[in-house]
Amino acid sequence: MKLVIGNKNYSSWSLRPWLLLSFHNIPFEEERIPLDKSDTQDRIAACSDAGKVPVLLDDELIVWDSLAICEYVSECYLGGAGWPESASVRAEARACSAEMHSGFPEIRNRMPMNCRAMGRRVELTDALRREIARIDRIWSGYRQRYATAGPWLFGEFSIADCMFAPVVFRFRTYGIGLSQQAAGYMQHLLGADALRQWMMQAEAELETIEAEEVGR
Amino acid sequence: MKLVIGNKNYSSWSLRPWLLLSFHNIPFEEERIPLDKSDTQDRIAACSDAGKVPVLLDDELIVWDSLAICEYVSECYLGGAGWPESASVRAEARACSAEMHSGFPEIRNRMPMNCRAMGRRVELTDALRREIARIDRIWSGYRQRYATAGPWLFGEFSIADCMFAPVVFRFRTYGIGLSQQAAGYMQHLLGADALRQWMMQAEAELETIEAEEVGR
Repeated sequence: MKLVIGNKNYSSWSLRPWLLLSFHNIPFEEERIPLDKSDTQDRIAACSDAGKVPVLLDDELIVWDSLAICEYVSECYLGGAGWPESASVRAEARACSAEMHSGFPEIRNRMPMNCRAMGRRVELTDALRREIARIDRIWSGYRQRYATAGPWLFGEFSIADCMFAPVVFRFRTYGIGLSQQAAGYMQHLLGADALRQWMMQAEAELETIEAEEVGR
Repeated sequence: MKLVIGNKNYSSWSLRPWLLLSFHNIPFEEERIPLDKSDTQDRIAACSDAGKVPVLLDDELIVWDSLAICEYVSECYLGGAGWPESASVRAEARACSAEMHSGFPEIRNRMPMNCRAMGRRVELTDALRREIARIDRIWSGYRQRYATAGPWLFGEFSIADCMFAPVVFRFRTYGIGLSQQAAGYMQHLLGADALRQWMMQAEAELETIEAEEVGR
């Protein structure tokens, strides 16, 4: 099984399935395609007609999109354990994962993931504040509800944690203030072995993409 | 079970789970919240903290986001039959559904869904052409591959058909030219009883949202 990803420092969508595979120690080969080179689009197009990373290549099968890859890995390599066991909790985990998947345009556009960058600044417009407040309510609400079930968003580690992992880096880079419970969840995620490994590998990358270096 | 939706004429995200439930004749109550009224946000917020339609209310459970609702309905009301039976085909169906869920910003922004509008115009920029061409390749590619399995995108009807249903209306409104196979798929979807029912109900709606009335 091979996972094709972008730069670890910048590619927030790549991080999600990488984290799921790494957390569960599922063996996979990794192909990294730096995102701003002259041959980037050709190299990605050679893997997937959708033209985006991440892409999972498993034998003959090509699976693209971070969420769809996570669903596939959960079904075929984790016996469904990528999601919470209870159908209703699983529905909530899928709902906030899907909300993250298609939403939060302000956070996405104005606070790009840049794992190694610290002390960046962003203007907290009303639209941005609303999105940050919504993330805070998701994190603190589920952490409060599932605290006794484990330290992750829904107790045990799930795809929802993978979907929010890039946001944790964004909030760290821009020093976003959160409620105590949301901040605690963020610290827990930042301390995970797999995420620390990603971060170290991001720091070791030599490429810089100017368009992503926002808020200095 | 109650599905909270926006205007049938305009709310592309609402159409997806509505179509899944309706196609499979799953009984549900419908609450329609017109999207541009002074009390719209309050009414939606009363159902879901995410502040968006569609929302599925099933007993105590609140499920939001079109894709997450479809996953929930598939698991809890269709025994998993919302997706193709084969794990690899299911992975492809989820991949292109997720691609639709988060992508195609040009189609989304410049060709808003407006079920009853016909003969609208849109400038076919390169970015828009690329997105339309990608949709055409998805539709024609899978129709070619799964033709013998049935008339839907992956043979039997699936959540992928629900995810692309709003695009079919967009293409009809703006008279977008497609390859023969993609056009055939579009006609098949437009002819489905459930989609015709949605269309008639959209035509019967009295509200007009000016911001969505693009390309006259």
